Amino acid sequence: MEKNYIKAAVIVIGDEILSGRTKDTNSNTIALFLAPFGIQLKEIRVIGDDETMIIETINHLRKTYNYVFTTGGIGPTHDDITADCVAKAFDVAIDVRDDAVEMMLNRYSKEDLTPARLRMARIPYGASLIKNPVSWAPGFQMENVFTMAGVPNIMRAMLEDIAPRLEAGRIIISKNIKADNLKEGDIAIPFGEIAKEYHELSFGSYPWFNGNGYGAQLVVRGFDKELVNKGVASVLSMLEDLGLKPIVE
Amino acid sequence: MEKNYIKAAVIVIGDEILSGRTKDTNSNTIALFLAPFGIQLKEIRVIGDDETMIIETINHLRKTYNYVFTTGGIGPTHDDITADCVAKAFDVAIDVRDDAVEMMLNRYSKEDLTPARLRMARIPYGASLIKNPVSWAPGFQMENVFTMAGVPNIMRAMLEDIAPRLEAGRIIISKNIKADNLKEGDIAIPFGEIAKEYHELSFGSYPWFNGNGYGAQLVVRGFDKELVNKGVASVLSMLEDLGLKPIVE
Repeated sequence: MEKNYIKAAVIVIGDEILSGRTKDTNSNTIALFLAPFGIQLKEIRVIGDDETMIIETINHLRKTYNYVFTTGGIGPTHDDITADCVAKAFDVAIDVRDDAVEMMLNRYSKEDLTPARLRMARIPYGASLIKNPVSWAPGFQMENVFTMAGVPNIMRAMLEDIAPRLEAGRIIISKNIKADNLKEGDIAIPFGEIAKEYHELSFGSYPWFNGNGYGAQLVVRGFDKELVNKGVASVLSMLEDLGLKPIVE
Repeated sequence: MEKNYIKAAVIVIGDEILSGRTKDTNSNTIALFLAPFGIQLKEIRVIGDDETMIIETINHLRKTYNYVFTTGGIGPTHDDITADCVAKAFDVAIDVRDDAVEMMLNRYSKEDLTPARLRMARIPYGASLIKNPVSWAPGFQMENVFTMAGVPNIMRAMLEDIAPRLEAGRIIISKNIKADNLKEGDIAIPFGEIAKEYHELSFGSYPWFNGNGYGAQLVVRGFDKELVNKGVASVLSMLEDLGLKPIVE
């Protein structure tokens, strides 16, 4: 089911994620945001505040995927180097831009726009702005690369501004089948056979174990709703034959 | 502060993370687990259940970092391909191994060890087992690559078994300085000067914005406790000069 995909990657930039101090929630937000557009997230990379690494990662992923989304590193402090790295990755200049300054005047007075704050109005040459209605320092789109803030509520607001710019792909339909007391080992072979039979669908199995017991979720995904429903019916029939009581979500 | 580092990467394997259905918590668990060993997590990659991608990612990262930790894809179903990918990455055979079967007999009777379940006892040639006291299907260590389950409580249990095998590096000391009402733009220049002055330390700034207000955390990190304390004192003095009331955590 690889064809008709529009593919995307996320780059999460920040030492604080790698140290474990901060939990990344942005990549999950982006994954859930992209699904209704039929844009499939194929890769997430979390990297540190390291110029070479950021440039190489952007350049590799922007050539590999239709869209790349970066989060983090666009504030005013010395460790905010993402904008400069994007400029270097595209080999273009970067400077303070009037429309970015204009946007920031929604929050700051002219006097408050110190040289440090104006760093946040530095935009790589040729990029278009991404609106930030939370703290008003913009993100920007450079070709297929969208550079956003790392603060989760700012990033979510920026996604809203990006939405109309995205080309939609075929939407994947996904059904979850949940069964308590399902041991994966009991269904692995018939489940694999169903997966072979419906080779246009993708079938996944995700077990859990906790204090209250165990079970698994079986996920059926594909472009064709009728075919997905047929796949789900086959999985349900297999589970019911084992005496389980699956629930479709 | 790059020298004396022992560096690691995490590979999270699974379509369910990329679709947004499941939130990855394992990479954060590993980051926090590694810190007290002085092992620095430098990169996290989340990739799908795709053979070529898994093999290439393992081979690139195991040559780049001292340790690589993979999570996900070692169950009994057709979409569990990580063990085979590790074998292919190292160009070794893979087969059911007696000691892995022995371990699984802690949970399953001999009759329950169906061909599907025995898939979980397939271990790449030359690997050592990683104990799984939750569901008893082992992970394994192949040179500097540790292959673990994706289910969070199983992965955490596997980390306990890995701990004694890790070579410790120099431990990084990290201090957080939290200040309500701190605008990054107000401190970016003096903060950058402090960062230049203490070039053996690393200084990060992480702002927040929410319904209750805004502020930022400034993080000072380094190997030398006294030097970190000096860096913290400089940051505190800068913040207090601005009339802020920082808290060191």
